[in-house]
Amino acid sequence: MVDTRFYKRLGPILLIDLISTLDVEIFSGKVSELLITNAAPAHLSKVGEISYYEKSRYRSNLSTCQASACFVKAEQAVAIEKLGSIPIISKFPRADFSRAATRLYQSIPYGDRDDHEIEGVDIGQNSVIGQGAIIGKGTIIGANSVIGPGVVLGENCVIGANVVIEYAILGDHCKIHHGAVIGCTGFGVAVSADGGVDIPHYGRVVIGDHVSVGSQTTIDRAMFGETKIGDGCKFDNQVQIGHNNTIGPNCMFAAHVGISGSCVIGARVIMGGKAGVADHINIGDGASLAASAGTMHDIPAGEMWSGSPALPIRQHMRQVSAIRKLVRQKKPPIKRDDNG
Amino acid sequence: MVDTRFYKRLGPILLIDLISTLDVEIFSGKVSELLITNAAPAHLSKVGEISYYEKSRYRSNLSTCQASACFVKAEQAVAIEKLGSIPIISKFPRADFSRAATRLYQSIPYGDRDDHEIEGVDIGQNSVIGQGAIIGKGTIIGANSVIGPGVVLGENCVIGANVVIEYAILGDHCKIHHGAVIGCTGFGVAVSADGGVDIPHYGRVVIGDHVSVGSQTTIDRAMFGETKIGDGCKFDNQVQIGHNNTIGPNCMFAAHVGISGSCVIGARVIMGGKAGVADHINIGDGASLAASAGTMHDIPAGEMWSGSPALPIRQHMRQVSAIRKLVRQKKPPIKRDDNG
Amino acid sequence: MVDTRFYKRLGPILLIDLISTLDVEIFSGKVSELLITNAAPAHLSKVGEISYYEKSRYRSNLSTCQASACFVKAEQAVAIEKLGSIPIISKFPRADFSRAATRLYQSIPYGDRDDHEIEGVDIGQNSVIGQGAIIGKGTIIGANSVIGPGVVLGENCVIGANVVIEYAILGDHCKIHHGAVIGCTGFGVAVSADGGVDIPHYGRVVIGDHVSVGSQTTIDRAMFGETKIGDGCKFDNQVQIGHNNTIGPNCMFAAHVGISGSCVIGARVIMGGKAGVADHINIGDGASLAASAGTMHDIPAGEMWSGSPALPIRQHMRQVSAIRKLVRQKKPPIKRDDNG
Repeated sequence: MVDTRFYKRLGPILLIDLISTLDVEIFSGKVSELLITNAAPAHLSKVGEISYYEKSRYRSNLSTCQASACFVKAEQAVAIEKLGSIPIISKFPRADFSRAATRLYQSIPYGDRDDHEIEGVDIGQNSVIGQGAIIGKGTIIGANSVIGPGVVLGENCVIGANVVIEYAILGDHCKIHHGAVIGCTGFGVAVSADGGVDIPHYGRVVIGDHVSVGSQTTIDRAMFGETKIGDGCKFDNQVQIGHNNTIGPNCMFAAHVGISGSCVIGARVIMGGKAGVADHINIGDGASLAASAGTMHDIPAGEMWSGSPALPIRQHMRQVSAIRKLVRQKKPPIKRDDNG
Repeated sequence: MVDTRFYKRLGPILLIDLISTLDVEIFSGKVSELLITNAAPAHLSKVGEISYYEKSRYRSNLSTCQASACFVKAEQAVAIEKLGSIPIISKFPRADFSRAATRLYQSIPYGDRDDHEIEGVDIGQNSVIGQGAIIGKGTIIGANSVIGPGVVLGENCVIGANVVIEYAILGDHCKIHHGAVIGCTGFGVAVSADGGVDIPHYGRVVIGDHVSVGSQTTIDRAMFGETKIGDGCKFDNQVQIGHNNTIGPNCMFAAHVGISGSCVIGARVIMGGKAGVADHINIGDGASLAASAGTMHDIPAGEMWSGSPALPIRQHMRQVSAIRKLVRQKKPPIKRDDNG
Repeated sequence: MVDTRFYKRLGPILLIDLISTLDVEIFSGKVSELLITNAAPAHLSKVGEISYYEKSRYRSNLSTCQASACFVKAEQAVAIEKLGSIPIISKFPRADFSRAATRLYQSIPYGDRDDHEIEGVDIGQNSVIGQGAIIGKGTIIGANSVIGPGVVLGENCVIGANVVIEYAILGDHCKIHHGAVIGCTGFGVAVSADGGVDIPHYGRVVIGDHVSVGSQTTIDRAMFGETKIGDGCKFDNQVQIGHNNTIGPNCMFAAHVGISGSCVIGARVIMGGKAGVADHINIGDGASLAASAGTMHDIPAGEMWSGSPALPIRQHMRQVSAIRKLVRQKKPPIKRDDNG
């Protein structure tokens, strides 16, 4: 499940040990000898893995769940049992899954690297390169940057100063500008009896060729699997790309754009400054979102939407002019504001 | 008044010396021997301190002003005198107060630290720790981070790479992700004859336990007193928390949220991406603000508001549909934009 | 054309060599011996320089074009020829110009500096200063910051920690807070047969006196010429100033403000949090833009605009109340949201 260039497996661990400190209960099934090796989302889970299930807007497809054990609320225990997975009854399945997962993996430490691995690479002063990182020919790294263990940078990339790249694989000819952060933990919190539990992230970021990432832009790694940025994408400064997004090739996002998480964005999608996209949204090839637009709905291929909540631009423009008329019926618009 | 872990007092200083270079005038009172030790906002000021008063939207409660001297405009001199404070007549009280305050304090320099103070702490390469900083057991600090003099980090915190933390006290189990900046000077400018004067910040940031702060997020310290973040708060990337805000426990703010300054936000408040809050706003427990919403008004406990300017969400949704109807009366909405 | 403190000229280069690998064609003219020294935008171009012309919203004034050669589409070749410039036929003039320009210049490397140049300057641990950088008396630089080759910092500036400043000239008494990035490449992409080509930036940033720049704020350098910030400007955290903007003195921008590019903003302009300005916009002296406002239109001097799309504030407020009335006619507004 996880990329062992970035994460070390601590297991296999006996299920009974894995859950020993949690406030959960085995619903049924022989667990005495059951070993758990990985954690995974239900629909991707395999034998020997632990997973969880919670009813939500985005129900994972249980039919493909093969997890050996699964954290669930009491009322779903029978459904899970039918799948051949051992139900572990929890009041907060997602939180308890998160706690268990952190016992199965450990990030690879920065360690002491073999400098031959980065021979012939131009690395700025005080930059820190983690063990096992692979940096392609002709790639340049600025001063005071941090490249995590196992990171792969392609050839002829230009990495700026004060950049952080972890848990990521980049293609060739990428430009990562000053202060950008790639591969940070995403934003996810599981409710529990003792407040929010940060959901652990054991995924990665995969970036194609010829991608440019602006200063201070942040691209979070996936919880599991990957946050994917297609070839030729160009992101401006201070853009935020949340965890588990898939962004197609040759997209262009202007400054302060924010993509929540788990979105699927097609090829050649253009977003103006400060455009925002809610989570789990699909945007088709060649679609565009105007500056300051915010969408909670899917956008079909080729359409341009604007406004917040966003609409097809003609519809939005018609609304804008209809609102102007509302006022004009009363008074001519004022051209000057004496308080200004 | 100020936390001497972060600031060194330069005083006491004779009032006459403190104001010697300023374009101000003593209105009345015996000042020859008057010593000033601190600067403070009027409503919190004590004997031996200097303060200022300007009519504003947010009038500080003068009844509790005990400052020995107070910068004011001529027309308020008598009112100040009645409080037993010596009025110092200034055309720009806030600017002259700011100039005087900078002569009373000095930040503690990074200096040379005793490394025993950080024994047993895992500190990344090239990280810089200021003198007197206290770092709890089990806390990890990434590479190229900067922890200021006197900063207190609790136990089992995870501080990322390229992080800056100054003038701050953090609890246990906090996660501060890559590139975050905590404790920076806030944004405040006092008008003066020679343009804007940056208002000095002699406050701090106090962060509770189990707080997570996203990459590139900025949390400014207070001018005086503190910017406070309650236990269990979870902030996404690129969030901005201005000076003097008080944020209750277990709040969740998504990416690009901005909280101006001097707001009081309750417990369990949730804000969607790009939500914004004007200064001096109160938001009740359990309230929420939708993505891209912007409020200039207080939000009662438990309410969900959306839109910009924000309204209770049902009211906003009713407006959205009313606007749609305006247009439908004319033409069916266009489902596709051929320019898209 | 370019500031040789920051860029080294690689030319003069024979035009035929400069374009040898490009998919272009000389339209006419004697080129065998033609040497090219610089690249420049058409309206600023001089003899010995190469330029390009593409029809666009923002047509550069061709009448002042003196370039010896100019990338154009076939249909404009004759017009360019009439100006005495040799037309180079390209399907993608801007992209081919960008490719050619990168062969004419090279950034000055950080190199090994003469430390006498920074004698008497207080420089934080692990900060990196490029060769030829000049730092004024009394200026302080925080830890882990990066000051590029040839950068000029005036006297009595305070540069924070983890700051990056390249290709920039700053005045006196500036404050650049933690994590700010000044002088990064701007956001510009030229369409080509093989996807987007990053437009090279050979300009600089010029910042006046008494300017304050907030944490994580980004100010991009110009493509050619300069991004200019006037004396006394105060920018909050996470502000984005794109390439080629000219910002007048004493402007105040709150957090998350974004200025696209090539805007001309007057003196004393005030912008609330999250305000946005499209590219090539003019904003007059003393104008202001409310929080969350977004403008695609010029704003006359002294006016205050709000909303998105922005309007004069009174007009916008009248619209807001008209929309409220639309709903009131149906039902009283709901004061509370039980889902909240």
